[in-house]
Amino acid sequence: MSGYSRTNKQKIINDPIYGFIKVPSDLVFDLIEHPYFQRLRRIRQLGMTYYVYPGANHTRFQHALGAMHLMGQATDIIRSKGHHITEEEAEAVTIAILLHDIGHGPFSHSLEHSLIKGLSHEELSLMYMELLNDSFKGKLAMAISIFRNHYSKRFLHQLVSGQLDMDRLDYLKRDSFFTGVTEGVIGSDRIIKMLNVLEDNLVVDEKGIYSIEKFLIARRLMFWQVYLHKSVLSADQLLVNLLRRAHYLSLGGEALFASPALQFFLNSHAGYSQGGQQAVFLEHFADLDDSDILSAAKVWAKHTDPVLSLLCRSFINRELFAIELQNEIFQEDRIDELRKRVSLQLNIPVEDAAYLVSSQGISNYIYTDLDDRIKILKKDGRILDIAEASDMLNISLLSKTIRKYFLWYPKFMKDLF
Amino acid sequence: MSGYSRTNKQKIINDPIYGFIKVPSDLVFDLIEHPYFQRLRRIRQLGMTYYVYPGANHTRFQHALGAMHLMGQATDIIRSKGHHITEEEAEAVTIAILLHDIGHGPFSHSLEHSLIKGLSHEELSLMYMELLNDSFKGKLAMAISIFRNHYSKRFLHQLVSGQLDMDRLDYLKRDSFFTGVTEGVIGSDRIIKMLNVLEDNLVVDEKGIYSIEKFLIARRLMFWQVYLHKSVLSADQLLVNLLRRAHYLSLGGEALFASPALQFFLNSHAGYSQGGQQAVFLEHFADLDDSDILSAAKVWAKHTDPVLSLLCRSFINRELFAIELQNEIFQEDRIDELRKRVSLQLNIPVEDAAYLVSSQGISNYIYTDLDDRIKILKKDGRILDIAEASDMLNISLLSKTIRKYFLWYPKFMKDLF
Amino acid sequence: MSGYSRTNKQKIINDPIYGFIKVPSDLVFDLIEHPYFQRLRRIRQLGMTYYVYPGANHTRFQHALGAMHLMGQATDIIRSKGHHITEEEAEAVTIAILLHDIGHGPFSHSLEHSLIKGLSHEELSLMYMELLNDSFKGKLAMAISIFRNHYSKRFLHQLVSGQLDMDRLDYLKRDSFFTGVTEGVIGSDRIIKMLNVLEDNLVVDEKGIYSIEKFLIARRLMFWQVYLHKSVLSADQLLVNLLRRAHYLSLGGEALFASPALQFFLNSHAGYSQGGQQAVFLEHFADLDDSDILSAAKVWAKHTDPVLSLLCRSFINRELFAIELQNEIFQEDRIDELRKRVSLQLNIPVEDAAYLVSSQGISNYIYTDLDDRIKILKKDGRILDIAEASDMLNISLLSKTIRKYFLWYPKFMKDLF
Amino acid sequence: MSGYSRTNKQKIINDPIYGFIKVPSDLVFDLIEHPYFQRLRRIRQLGMTYYVYPGANHTRFQHALGAMHLMGQATDIIRSKGHHITEEEAEAVTIAILLHDIGHGPFSHSLEHSLIKGLSHEELSLMYMELLNDSFKGKLAMAISIFRNHYSKRFLHQLVSGQLDMDRLDYLKRDSFFTGVTEGVIGSDRIIKMLNVLEDNLVVDEKGIYSIEKFLIARRLMFWQVYLHKSVLSADQLLVNLLRRAHYLSLGGEALFASPALQFFLNSHAGYSQGGQQAVFLEHFADLDDSDILSAAKVWAKHTDPVLSLLCRSFINRELFAIELQNEIFQEDRIDELRKRVSLQLNIPVEDAAYLVSSQGISNYIYTDLDDRIKILKKDGRILDIAEASDMLNISLLSKTIRKYFLWYPKFMKDLF
Repeated sequence: MSGYSRTNKQKIINDPIYGFIKVPSDLVFDLIEHPYFQRLRRIRQLGMTYYVYPGANHTRFQHALGAMHLMGQATDIIRSKGHHITEEEAEAVTIAILLHDIGHGPFSHSLEHSLIKGLSHEELSLMYMELLNDSFKGKLAMAISIFRNHYSKRFLHQLVSGQLDMDRLDYLKRDSFFTGVTEGVIGSDRIIKMLNVLEDNLVVDEKGIYSIEKFLIARRLMFWQVYLHKSVLSADQLLVNLLRRAHYLSLGGEALFASPALQFFLNSHAGYSQGGQQAVFLEHFADLDDSDILSAAKVWAKHTDPVLSLLCRSFINRELFAIELQNEIFQEDRIDELRKRVSLQLNIPVEDAAYLVSSQGISNYIYTDLDDRIKILKKDGRILDIAEASDMLNISLLSKTIRKYFLWYPKFMKDLF
Repeated sequence: MSGYSRTNKQKIINDPIYGFIKVPSDLVFDLIEHPYFQRLRRIRQLGMTYYVYPGANHTRFQHALGAMHLMGQATDIIRSKGHHITEEEAEAVTIAILLHDIGHGPFSHSLEHSLIKGLSHEELSLMYMELLNDSFKGKLAMAISIFRNHYSKRFLHQLVSGQLDMDRLDYLKRDSFFTGVTEGVIGSDRIIKMLNVLEDNLVVDEKGIYSIEKFLIARRLMFWQVYLHKSVLSADQLLVNLLRRAHYLSLGGEALFASPALQFFLNSHAGYSQGGQQAVFLEHFADLDDSDILSAAKVWAKHTDPVLSLLCRSFINRELFAIELQNEIFQEDRIDELRKRVSLQLNIPVEDAAYLVSSQGISNYIYTDLDDRIKILKKDGRILDIAEASDMLNISLLSKTIRKYFLWYPKFMKDLF
Repeated sequence: MSGYSRTNKQKIINDPIYGFIKVPSDLVFDLIEHPYFQRLRRIRQLGMTYYVYPGANHTRFQHALGAMHLMGQATDIIRSKGHHITEEEAEAVTIAILLHDIGHGPFSHSLEHSLIKGLSHEELSLMYMELLNDSFKGKLAMAISIFRNHYSKRFLHQLVSGQLDMDRLDYLKRDSFFTGVTEGVIGSDRIIKMLNVLEDNLVVDEKGIYSIEKFLIARRLMFWQVYLHKSVLSADQLLVNLLRRAHYLSLGGEALFASPALQFFLNSHAGYSQGGQQAVFLEHFADLDDSDILSAAKVWAKHTDPVLSLLCRSFINRELFAIELQNEIFQEDRIDELRKRVSLQLNIPVEDAAYLVSSQGISNYIYTDLDDRIKILKKDGRILDIAEASDMLNISLLSKTIRKYFLWYPKFMKDLF
Repeated sequence: MSGYSRTNKQKIINDPIYGFIKVPSDLVFDLIEHPYFQRLRRIRQLGMTYYVYPGANHTRFQHALGAMHLMGQATDIIRSKGHHITEEEAEAVTIAILLHDIGHGPFSHSLEHSLIKGLSHEELSLMYMELLNDSFKGKLAMAISIFRNHYSKRFLHQLVSGQLDMDRLDYLKRDSFFTGVTEGVIGSDRIIKMLNVLEDNLVVDEKGIYSIEKFLIARRLMFWQVYLHKSVLSADQLLVNLLRRAHYLSLGGEALFASPALQFFLNSHAGYSQGGQQAVFLEHFADLDDSDILSAAKVWAKHTDPVLSLLCRSFINRELFAIELQNEIFQEDRIDELRKRVSLQLNIPVEDAAYLVSSQGISNYIYTDLDDRIKILKKDGRILDIAEASDMLNISLLSKTIRKYFLWYPKFMKDLF
């Protein structure tokens, strides 16, 4: 079995986690072959995390295929429990999960809200789905309807986006696999086997409660061990700030080396919201991936602007900045003082030092206590929220968004303290 | 334990294969931190293989750390069998394996002998080791001596480069892990446990013979299933030919988008051998990685030259060319005929069609019957070549380099046949 | 590498979980070779659990070796953090963990407190350690001292018996491995890497807190999914009651087929406490293992006593009794009523029906809120109990022993309801 | 998901290798519940191998379920390639593989041809299948027909018994998993995916050739590393000879402790062939398992016969005899001389010493060059034997049965040499 073959309509892809992934239909196959989807091969799933966990080079492409694979399992299980899912619905929900991340830009979350303001990757995904729907003559209509939660069977949307969607089940497993943080591994097989539907809601059979507890704990572990790891945050911030600085210089008239697609974003005064040039915007965005940023940053590392070149050198050579994390917001005084000292040290204006000293809030939530709770189906037919069903987890705490703040500045400042 | 930490001189890196990799000394740590080594984070270990096995995004960086890890095991085992290895030698052989691939360029083997002619990656590695030796005030002298096989204890060189070196043991394991071709997995633990030294030669204790057989078979399987997979060869050829075309156009005066480092190679009339500008050459080469090629190819996909744009579009969107494989060389007539038809079809000169229709020989060898054979240490003290010791493997065939030839051309030509 | 070799004082044992386990010293090797220890090869680690999870045939022998292996890792880590452990202490703590379960009888916990009353397996382990200490001329004195928590360095005892001892770390990993309940897998590597010592107490470095949370959750999952699985409890109860019945018949003068060792226990009026015949008792107990029970039960399945034969047939052929589980004690009325109906149904005296209808309390605790808490070492040097350090786990609930009650009776009674 | 559940006709069993095994039909479920099949829970798959690889406590029960699981995959794949298999045939071939080993006695192969002479386990399996067919009112007729290769579709038999049957695919994977000899792991998934049918023969698609090579090499490795490991042979021989001695003493009128079933075999003058008491024979045999032998051997270890007690003590306490292995038959002189010295040493008649000094031939074959060869289906439709298709393996050697001879004697004799 080769890794990727189309002969005899047998389309099977090798995956280090699931072994073999079968492409379920010709339409899905054609979507995978589309340049918009192939682009995901060039976008790292976990942004700069590979600076901390060298194995984390896996891509959005792999994740999307993995989530598609789990969706096949989930629809099989749900059907086997007596809930009707038509062939068309099964294909649509598969397409919805396959394309759920198609709007991700370079380095996934690391650059989200930074390169493009005012648009989440979900909104972008939807735009690309609409474009694909045009190309594929309306065949994605039901998938889009499910994705937007407009489709009558709500539980299909919950498989795409919810507390136990196939997105999370795949990314937790995949991210722990590739980082080597084996403790984050979840029992996706078992959780999927426990899925059920009651009154158009995705629920979990009672026997699955321990697996759900473990899933929540594993998710929390991944947050602190990986997603919000201090050095990952520090590396992300380098990336964010070097692009902010490049944008600033570009807008000021400085010509910077960049691919045309990257150039477009460096030169635009505002985000997508401005004007109605959606088509142009989406075309350029579809040309962007990790490589444009990496290739440009290496060139900018030799730029005459001391701020840009410092950020880029640090970024390329992995000379991470210091980062402090605390539960309270950092005082403006301290930040200002740091910027002043950096400006003195590097002999740059204090406004420029703001690119080298950053502070910001970050937050995570493991389980949000909103409409979309994990529901446990008791043997007697009752439905309980996991918070009631589990006597173990402090769900009220889990539900609370944890907010932390970081302060980020060049390492040489440490020696000056 | 975070992924990567330096506190208290405890330097441990997470690896999905070995769990935890310990950095054995401060010098080794500093080498890992050097920009030359960090560059390997941006070079895929298996070139375009991720077009066939989507998991194969692992990098030279990961491989070098893995080989370093195995070297630690190997020196421990050899010492435990009574052979003396000084602390200095242990560090030197560790450095030699850590840096053995530091001369790899973008996409590793996929572009070797193409971007730079007349220089293998081993020769380049040596050049960078010499540069690092200067930076580190001669501390790499013994490592270089071992790498070049000039050091008195020959078996140390064999651990770096030989039939059972730590390079192979890691890459076979790593490549099968990340491709998901689980059958290629080798028992590196067991093989290393069986290593011994006799008369300054690395040998294998007799009990390890079955592991060696399996290692050779796994290696062969990986060659055909992965390294020489038809679609991988086809993708590689796109990469090779798009760079050849870009080079041709550049030399003809066409200005192409490229990072300065890539520009340097596109504009140079010849390889490194010409002139004595080693320093300039190495500086530019150290700035190159996968991202420069990917970023440029996306731009070139819209170039007016129909050959370059076709190659780049095909490359970026994974529209692989057809490829035929056979044991005999392809006849010139057939190749010429194909080129003529391509030139007619695309309305381009027949010389240009040569970039779209390629034929070439490829070869592999699993076990080369030369000086450096795998030697089995019998319990009675005798040494046997694996070819004598194994009654199972057809070693004479294994020893023979297998040569195949491919013919590569656009897929649309298939429909014209 | 063969599975088990003594040549050249290289003593290495293959283990499916850890790969290779090295026997650290000649004394340890000799203890492993002793018949008392070899007996553990014939005692299933998880009693009747293999009736629910067919893979759970692993033995106390494997577990003891695994715990020994982890002890080697733990002492290495603790030493590397600057805490002194002498060679003699390292060997002693290794022996203590190796022998900690040597007093287990047939089917481990399934028959504990049933075959022998008034003696826990820990007390028996200690008795056998004393016997071995005599044979080995006092060389086990320090190991015994550590086991009994009489040794000055208390943290050594905590490695043998405590919240995070090597016993638990191995059995959770091993039991989840062999049952196939992959979600129970814990990151023993990471936990061990986080161990530290402060003021003679085993503590966990702050960074390990998420691993500890996951360990507690995994432990809880294993309790409900495996250790207290209803069908396992039901199978255990068959075993307990068939032995009770056989004991009753034996004491009444009935000659039952049994090996001499089993005969000894069937015929003794009371447990070990009676008389001072410790030597005789221990000699017979050392001859007992799973096989004596299994072999006898097959014979008893054809006995004329209808109660014994029903219990044994059900046991041998895995025709499990019904079991109900609830949080409150079952009412005497219901139990009596059931016994009456069983006596009518089978035409046996109602006293005999008590062997076929049982009710009992069971309890588990995951984390006991006593002296020996898991202590977290903050970076600032403070020590926190996990209950304070974790904002996630409901430790007060974890600390509470959960008590449940079961009611167990023949399945045919269900049809009569 | 509990390990083993029948609710809602969902019958799923946990397996450490495949995760979840689904019981495909009610008939299959009822067969699994039958005492004949449950007996396999008490028979180790690999006899005394657990004396070398402590993890090898897996049973015939687990193996039979595993092979059943793979059969489901194989029939799915073959159907997906356009070959018709009716539902009835699919169930029949599943039953055939489930029951293929039901005739195994205590310690599987270790005691085969020793306890019962003149009957292989396959013949016994067939007898029990016939008995079950009677109980199940003829529902096993087609399964038996397939098992005996009397059924019209021959490839179904080949799935049960052939070069690539589900038996081998499971046992190689399972035995390497539980021994921890990871190198023996085969890619059963990939091999099954490559199975095809041509002219009523099971064949392998051309792309699978490397997997087949690896399968053959892995099988060979398992033979030498596990199945014919010297210490395993030595332990097996203890078992064989202690039973021979007990048989001899029993026939001589000595009353030995034994369960009635074991007693039956100890007292019978000849094997099954004698007389026509098949029913009695099969009834007793069905009552036998590992426990009867283990329990008795412990008692016999204290018997007054010095030969029996020595054998049993050695067996129980794992004091293995010395064993020599060579390609040529051992000379009678040497054997006689050894026996004489043993008789002197132990002061026993020289005839008795024959139980303590044994010599015998053993043979293995990895690939037998007979009717049933592995056939490769080329893309052009041609069929090649693997020997022609693979240029790598020395198939003529693989085909040759390797015959070795061992000489086995008490270890104390070594010191006397």
